[in-house]
Amino acid sequence: MFDPLPLLDQPPRERADAARNREALLAAAARLVEHCGVDAVTMDNVAAEAGVGKGTVFRRFDSREGLMAALLNRSETEFQRLVIEGPPPLGPGAPALERLHAFGHSRMEVNLQHAELIRAAGRAGERSYAAMSFAAMHVRYLLSQLGVRGDIAFLATALLAPLEMVVLVQQTRDEQVPIERIQHGWDDLVRRIACREVNQPPSG
Amino acid sequence: MFDPLPLLDQPPRERADAARNREALLAAAARLVEHCGVDAVTMDNVAAEAGVGKGTVFRRFDSREGLMAALLNRSETEFQRLVIEGPPPLGPGAPALERLHAFGHSRMEVNLQHAELIRAAGRAGERSYAAMSFAAMHVRYLLSQLGVRGDIAFLATALLAPLEMVVLVQQTRDEQVPIERIQHGWDDLVRRIACREVNQPPSG
Repeated sequence: MFDPLPLLDQPPRERADAARNREALLAAAARLVEHCGVDAVTMDNVAAEAGVGKGTVFRRFDSREGLMAALLNRSETEFQRLVIEGPPPLGPGAPALERLHAFGHSRMEVNLQHAELIRAAGRAGERSYAAMSFAAMHVRYLLSQLGVRGDIAFLATALLAPLEMVVLVQQTRDEQVPIERIQHGWDDLVRRIACREVNQPPSG
Repeated sequence: MFDPLPLLDQPPRERADAARNREALLAAAARLVEHCGVDAVTMDNVAAEAGVGKGTVFRRFDSREGLMAALLNRSETEFQRLVIEGPPPLGPGAPALERLHAFGHSRMEVNLQHAELIRAAGRAGERSYAAMSFAAMHVRYLLSQLGVRGDIAFLATALLAPLEMVVLVQQTRDEQVPIERIQHGWDDLVRRIACREVNQPPSG
């Protein structure tokens, strides 16, 4: 059985209007990221997009770095929610192998977006141990479901390591490898790691 | 054919006595790392160990960060030399599969040492692209020698990614996984990635 994992950093209970205010600012910032890229997310632009004064943005997030860290957290939480209870094949309901492929592709995209946010967030957005351990637990679960033998914990690490931001950024930015080629390579890696037993002819 | 790769950052030709002086200081610092750990490497300690004045150490390396970056470079260069022309199985002369296992184990140890040096070197010692591309080229070469089919470049990335410092440090420090277990898991990963074709029964 898969116990849903706690989502990251659930905020302390805020008064409902303050929470709505915060979410409106984050949603405005997320729209800016989506349409104009991370560099367009300034405190001024977020205030304008959300239709509030700049002071409101500063009171809520202290600094652009703080805003970026909050965006990062919101995005990771949403990703975890989709894995836990979203539609298949990322969410429950698809066969484990399909879920594993879907997880890798989504994680790759999320990590590439997050690499930008982390760069902008500075130390406030360092590689999140909570995000890594969520991913590791989910991949271990799927490998177990697939009946993979061996050191499941290390094999999960091996599947996730090529999706680490530092490795992805090197491939996509420094070596100009197209993302489709990385996805294709990762799918092949999954087959080599996870399907060995599945593909073995029955013994005896 | 394997063309030996250029070693990292070969220093510009220095006068022979200056080069000897520099090497004596680095050798002293390396002894301190080996016997007392990275934290023991202060400018004072290095001067004392090398039998020179502290001013000499500062003139040569500017700062402790600069000294750490030089140590990192020296260690990587030595590692590359051992791979290119050292004794087997890390160096040439052993079967490709043995060399691949030896390379992974050595790289793991070197990266764990380097993670400490990089921490101490600050920005001066950021993850070296040159070191990564040396490792990638060597692993691609060995995978080709093994007759592995598929996207050799991505498979090399997949073999090296679990040896990335950030991944190793999380395993060994945050999750307290013993290094032997990581080595064992990596050897299994090599078999899954590299030996699929080798182990396949002949067709037809």
